[in-house]
Amino acid sequence: VTADEPPLDYGFLADALDAADARAFVHVGDADADLRYLSRLPDTIDEYGFVYTDGEATLCTSSDADCDDGSVVETFSGQVRRESPDDPVGTRVVAALADYGVSEGATVLVPRQLPHDAAVYLESAGYDLASTPVVGETRAVKSEWELDRLRAVQRAAARGVERARSILADADVRAGTLHWQDAPLSTERLRRQVNATLAAEGVVDVTATRIRHGTDPARTPVKLSSGTPVVVSLAPRGRHGYYGTLTRTFVVDSDGGWERRAHVGVESARRVALAELEPGASLRWVHSEAVAEASSFGLPASDGDRVSGVGLARREAPSLADDAAVGHVVALEPSVTDDDHGSVALADLAVVTEDGCDLLVECSTSLVP
Amino acid sequence: VTADEPPLDYGFLADALDAADARAFVHVGDADADLRYLSRLPDTIDEYGFVYTDGEATLCTSSDADCDDGSVVETFSGQVRRESPDDPVGTRVVAALADYGVSEGATVLVPRQLPHDAAVYLESAGYDLASTPVVGETRAVKSEWELDRLRAVQRAAARGVERARSILADADVRAGTLHWQDAPLSTERLRRQVNATLAAEGVVDVTATRIRHGTDPARTPVKLSSGTPVVVSLAPRGRHGYYGTLTRTFVVDSDGGWERRAHVGVESARRVALAELEPGASLRWVHSEAVAEASSFGLPASDGDRVSGVGLARREAPSLADDAAVGHVVALEPSVTDDDHGSVALADLAVVTEDGCDLLVECSTSLVP
Repeated sequence: VTADEPPLDYGFLADALDAADARAFVHVGDADADLRYLSRLPDTIDEYGFVYTDGEATLCTSSDADCDDGSVVETFSGQVRRESPDDPVGTRVVAALADYGVSEGATVLVPRQLPHDAAVYLESAGYDLASTPVVGETRAVKSEWELDRLRAVQRAAARGVERARSILADADVRAGTLHWQDAPLSTERLRRQVNATLAAEGVVDVTATRIRHGTDPARTPVKLSSGTPVVVSLAPRGRHGYYGTLTRTFVVDSDGGWERRAHVGVESARRVALAELEPGASLRWVHSEAVAEASSFGLPASDGDRVSGVGLARREAPSLADDAAVGHVVALEPSVTDDDHGSVALADLAVVTEDGCDLLVECSTSLVP
Repeated sequence: VTADEPPLDYGFLADALDAADARAFVHVGDADADLRYLSRLPDTIDEYGFVYTDGEATLCTSSDADCDDGSVVETFSGQVRRESPDDPVGTRVVAALADYGVSEGATVLVPRQLPHDAAVYLESAGYDLASTPVVGETRAVKSEWELDRLRAVQRAAARGVERARSILADADVRAGTLHWQDAPLSTERLRRQVNATLAAEGVVDVTATRIRHGTDPARTPVKLSSGTPVVVSLAPRGRHGYYGTLTRTFVVDSDGGWERRAHVGVESARRVALAELEPGASLRWVHSEAVAEASSFGLPASDGDRVSGVGLARREAPSLADDAAVGHVVALEPSVTDDDHGSVALADLAVVTEDGCDLLVECSTSLVP
């Protein structure tokens, strides 16, 4: 939340209420992406509520809810109600609705992931709940401010990939095993170095960083070998809550075998996906065209291969079932996998524009570190 | 999830079902702490379900759910059902219950934060839902394996505090402003350095790192000054999902004024809290005794001051309303605040033992970096 952040326009909620003949929209949580979009708050320790009715947005927090970072709720553009943390958020939301004159029997729109106990409090107070996907649909289209935040975290991801590349480039091979700074280089050691770079670039969550090596199990640290694909897969979350998505594959001392062919196929699939992604294109079509391209090299697509929206959640609208629209930010993640060699994967974020799409951040796809 | 992790004993769920005359327990989510405790999975991109009935635990995942880290669900000790991601998790959970012979009209226990749509699917299938707090209560008592994970992330936090201390110790003062490596030292620069150290130590989430400076707003980067309290507040999350909690306050070139007195008072409050925390002690009592101790120095406690459980969530059971029990891990966070000077705060994690409590990790409380 920064001073330059424009206030959120809640008009889409007013439209959804009109369309459903509903009186209010309610959400409750502490870290849900829809709720963070509505409140512009980071993850909180305590649950809080969001209420929208009669054109007015209100946060129902406890006196404790913002203690973690006291200045945060001051940046919310609507009303803030502070009540005792001893009352469940559900009862505080019901009290707010009553104060706003929303009477029993009214329809209240809620997202499908509203916590069950909040739903029970609302229903016990006589409201009819109806589920709405409108928040997720609305936040699929990014504002310029959001695109700036996504570019910032994607630039940090590119620095993380560059850190991995430079370590692999500096590594020397002893009896087939990579050594860096005079010690064997493991997936875990590389992961920590990359994560330290991401954190130094301002990233706050590196939970999703994966270093895969050949066919080795993903979560067991293993020493890196020459001639084996090392997949550096990053989905860092920046301090404003937006996720990057960037994957590159490197092979030290490649003998030019399977991984070279796989890399050519995956690069080609990536080009096809970028060429097909444009307003009106079905994401399932973009995905199937990329898979077909990789297949034309005799390479089966791997399970992880996907096309989906990215923003305040690592995966969000649009999904494969949707058509691309201007302002969608989409992860393109072509990959191929092989029982003997492992995987070769690339992933990038692209924003859909009037006449196609643009990569959020450019990053070399070279297989050679 | 490591090979040395003992399987979770779901006997507490069997007991809860017996006590409530219920046939099954169900939970759904992607990153909820209760769900992670039950499944031993990290955060996932896709929602999945957990079902317990007739002594058997089952995960309902989609074919996509574990693509992020394919080896993970192999470590789950119960059954794993894989179904199409096109079916909502709620319908997949209902199908699992039907397959296990749980018939319409049966009572199903759920946590209060079950997503609303999953509740609607269960109720539409004819099940009566009853809320249970049993998972949160059970995971309040940590196993030896969990204590090891908590100690590991708390050790990383101590390295992060040490990084902050050494940067502040190395800083030189120019016209009242701290400089480090020939550039002004800001809260943001210090935060990134600390976070890079945490990441290099294996931490995956540093969202909660806060560097507060005097009375300056928490989220606006400011240059650090001599003579002003710098509060380094860390709650890093390790890769197994457990949170540390460690706060230290430093003053460069203190003139021995308010912050010295405040620091003596907060250290004294910390000693009182550690002395009072033992099996059977009410956490509200521990908290009020610590606040009273700080008050005896003429220092009002700040809002952030708290006593609560820590584990797979940054704040979990036990709460102020609970009594301490052996195996509880409790954050003790005495602090004082002043409109003119800012805050002095300390925070530590202690585990409740048979005869009192032990700090999880020792870390100097010195005000002088």
